[in-house]
Amino acid sequence: MKITTKDICELVNGELIGDPNLIIEGPSKIEDGKAGTISFLANPKYNTFAYSTKASALLVHKDFVPTEELTPTLIKVENVYTSLGKLLNSFNQLNTNIGIAKTAIVKEGCSIHDSVSIGEYSTISKNVQIGENSQIFDQVYLGTNVQIGKNALIFPGVKIYHNCVLGDNVTIHSNAVIGSDGFGFAQNSSGEYEKIPQVGNVQIADNVEIGSNTTIDRATMGSTIIGKGVKLDNLIQIAHNVTIGENTVIAAQVGIAGSAKIGKNCQIGGQVGIAGHIEIPDNVKIQGQSGVTSNSIQEGQQLYGTPAMDFKKYLKSFAYFKKLPEMAASIKKLLKQIEDLKSSK
Amino acid sequence: MKITTKDICELVNGELIGDPNLIIEGPSKIEDGKAGTISFLANPKYNTFAYSTKASALLVHKDFVPTEELTPTLIKVENVYTSLGKLLNSFNQLNTNIGIAKTAIVKEGCSIHDSVSIGEYSTISKNVQIGENSQIFDQVYLGTNVQIGKNALIFPGVKIYHNCVLGDNVTIHSNAVIGSDGFGFAQNSSGEYEKIPQVGNVQIADNVEIGSNTTIDRATMGSTIIGKGVKLDNLIQIAHNVTIGENTVIAAQVGIAGSAKIGKNCQIGGQVGIAGHIEIPDNVKIQGQSGVTSNSIQEGQQLYGTPAMDFKKYLKSFAYFKKLPEMAASIKKLLKQIEDLKSSK
Amino acid sequence: MKITTKDICELVNGELIGDPNLIIEGPSKIEDGKAGTISFLANPKYNTFAYSTKASALLVHKDFVPTEELTPTLIKVENVYTSLGKLLNSFNQLNTNIGIAKTAIVKEGCSIHDSVSIGEYSTISKNVQIGENSQIFDQVYLGTNVQIGKNALIFPGVKIYHNCVLGDNVTIHSNAVIGSDGFGFAQNSSGEYEKIPQVGNVQIADNVEIGSNTTIDRATMGSTIIGKGVKLDNLIQIAHNVTIGENTVIAAQVGIAGSAKIGKNCQIGGQVGIAGHIEIPDNVKIQGQSGVTSNSIQEGQQLYGTPAMDFKKYLKSFAYFKKLPEMAASIKKLLKQIEDLKSSK
Repeated sequence: MKITTKDICELVNGELIGDPNLIIEGPSKIEDGKAGTISFLANPKYNTFAYSTKASALLVHKDFVPTEELTPTLIKVENVYTSLGKLLNSFNQLNTNIGIAKTAIVKEGCSIHDSVSIGEYSTISKNVQIGENSQIFDQVYLGTNVQIGKNALIFPGVKIYHNCVLGDNVTIHSNAVIGSDGFGFAQNSSGEYEKIPQVGNVQIADNVEIGSNTTIDRATMGSTIIGKGVKLDNLIQIAHNVTIGENTVIAAQVGIAGSAKIGKNCQIGGQVGIAGHIEIPDNVKIQGQSGVTSNSIQEGQQLYGTPAMDFKKYLKSFAYFKKLPEMAASIKKLLKQIEDLKSSK
Repeated sequence: MKITTKDICELVNGELIGDPNLIIEGPSKIEDGKAGTISFLANPKYNTFAYSTKASALLVHKDFVPTEELTPTLIKVENVYTSLGKLLNSFNQLNTNIGIAKTAIVKEGCSIHDSVSIGEYSTISKNVQIGENSQIFDQVYLGTNVQIGKNALIFPGVKIYHNCVLGDNVTIHSNAVIGSDGFGFAQNSSGEYEKIPQVGNVQIADNVEIGSNTTIDRATMGSTIIGKGVKLDNLIQIAHNVTIGENTVIAAQVGIAGSAKIGKNCQIGGQVGIAGHIEIPDNVKIQGQSGVTSNSIQEGQQLYGTPAMDFKKYLKSFAYFKKLPEMAASIKKLLKQIEDLKSSK
Repeated sequence: MKITTKDICELVNGELIGDPNLIIEGPSKIEDGKAGTISFLANPKYNTFAYSTKASALLVHKDFVPTEELTPTLIKVENVYTSLGKLLNSFNQLNTNIGIAKTAIVKEGCSIHDSVSIGEYSTISKNVQIGENSQIFDQVYLGTNVQIGKNALIFPGVKIYHNCVLGDNVTIHSNAVIGSDGFGFAQNSSGEYEKIPQVGNVQIADNVEIGSNTTIDRATMGSTIIGKGVKLDNLIQIAHNVTIGENTVIAAQVGIAGSAKIGKNCQIGGQVGIAGHIEIPDNVKIQGQSGVTSNSIQEGQQLYGTPAMDFKKYLKSFAYFKKLPEMAASIKKLLKQIEDLKSSK
């Protein structure tokens, strides 16, 4: 794809400083930009590269003022990342309208919009509904009664169990599993575990993205709920009956145990664990690898550690943890000195 | 499905207090029960909902005595969870006897019982054996010589490598991988790692359930062994030559390194890590995110922390960890006071 | 397969002490060796089994000198594990040259070497290249423009997104996902996250092995890079734009966040987390479950803890962490004694 700097400027609603007629063939990182590419500057740490990059054009914040001479044509915008997103999208158009592959199996009772694509060796069970412009890639499995809204992207190998419901604009990456059984067992009198059937489902709201190999279990009864705009990275575990509030983002390998309730706009770092039935209020930030095991969390709080505590307090305590050998030596010395003082009286 | 309260009562061998002729169409959670549904009361925390729920019937413990008037018909049972399990099973019958799909590939030398179902696009390699009433769903791969007992449920996308052996009543959820190579390499003199072929297998005993995207590696030689009645949640890693004892339950994202040996009836919390060659005795409980790196564990002990230590001692030490800044201030003050005392003599 | 002790000796270039004409049918572990098998002795801990094993032959280090009488024929070698690897390989030959299955789909523009095997229900998208002797097993998905070198083993269910490039001798285990989108979003003024398209790829060098259900995200721009000889265990998350240096080995369930740069010959334990943009020099060892969040790491250093610190210092501090209750009691006692001393003056 080729696009002029002028057209890019219109696409991102920016201000152009330089040559409007440059031909741009793709994006590049600023530190290894090449002629014919457009790069971007979002993090001030990279400012110095603006003066050395070989990229032909540069997407920058509207307040960026060069402190030296530079060669790229500048396109100034309100929000560099949002503009970059629009721009990359235009370079990244996936094949659309490939239709329904001959090897795709669609069972009876399904309602599939004409504009839907279904890839090779995917199986769509009975009574599935799929909305406008959704793309189901290869080797996907959709169980009975699954509902998928508009503009879905379901990547190869995704498995969605029966009765799960997805809103519009949902993206699910390869080999993620939606709606497998919750981990529910009751111990009988001989110490064996008997399965508690998991008869609920998973409900995924609009604009959710789910990473590869992430697993979201169906509810025992009722629904496991993923709120509007939630973003889940790879290899995350969401247990049965969990609720996640709108616009919460969760990094890779986080595990959220059964019936936990996560608020809106939370940011959860990688490998965090959240115990069962915990409630986390809105706007909470949790540092990577923390383990949240109690409910006394305040809205907007930042957490760290296992068991998780206030972020700043953890760092302070951890600074002293590093000094524990010296502290122990001081205590030993003090005990000795006290004995000396007492005996010298 | 519709069932009367009287029939439910017989199914769970309970005592009925109320109307035996109510028609129940499905289960519900007590806090959002609706007319025509049956709910349950297992946790006393939820007792108050018994008096406000709109559910038509309620499964309760035989010792439950209402303290206020309530409207649902009560069904009193010995064990609420076990009864609930039976009840939900009757609402949750999966399609059985769907037979072998036309697109399923079964290679030569296989021995598949007549009652087995195999889903679309599944491939069954040479010399596989599958027992009575087992259901293999879509897009499953079974390698050469795999043996599966009776009543298995192998969900879509599961991959089982050659020579692995499963007992009866085994359930494996989507995209789990059984029998991939153990992580074994030998460093040569130039610092490169050369593969040690992994020629063993995985043996899974009766009544085991394995969660979605969990991985169990084959043994280098011999077998990786999952004992009878073991329950594994999602995204768990079981390395080569591990042995797990009967009725041990393991929560999501736990990792067990090579040749570790886990006892019977253990309970292992989410995201726990267990180092290679560690032996864990029976009835041990390990708190989520703990890291077990030494062998001095006693039967029935409860562990926490990284490296893992006694659970109660960890909590006690952690309480002081939180107070480290105050402790350091006290030491500083003491050192000053001692100096004052010494110089004032 | 049957092989004589003499032939084994030649295969591993060893020295034979005993009967050169024994028939060996397979490998065994030394503690449960049977007649007709060959076992090995690599760890001195197992030396005692050499005198009781029923294995017919024993692979031992060239310096091994029996301290008692023993019955197996000995084959003495320079490196037991390397020799064992060669030997097991000869017992473990996978089916080769099975050709391209009738149900495999190969789209237009592909360049597939004649010697390549492709399994059932695998789909090879447009313009894919696959080199000599590579084996693609069942239900694999290769996206548009994927390039795979010679001697690859791509196990069932692996999904590789478009434009990813693999070198020679790459092994990828079942249900691993290569090239799914990096986790990149920009928050807009209403607090919603907008996707930053991920238009880069993943580049995997020669001799890399990747475990089952591991995920490696494509770069936002440029490439996520896995260096030559890197070994990745199961369920690992490698985020967008990460670089991993040659011969680094990474255990299961490790997570490496975006743009982190890992050096050569590092050893990273299970469940370690590495924060975004971190740089780790060569030869670093990181203990399992550690969380690396800062850049002040030295070449060859060994790390432990969250946040990660020097391994030995962590163990020392942790030893005092266990003693915190006693330390707090000492401080309390000291404060009391000081008060007594002061008031007694």
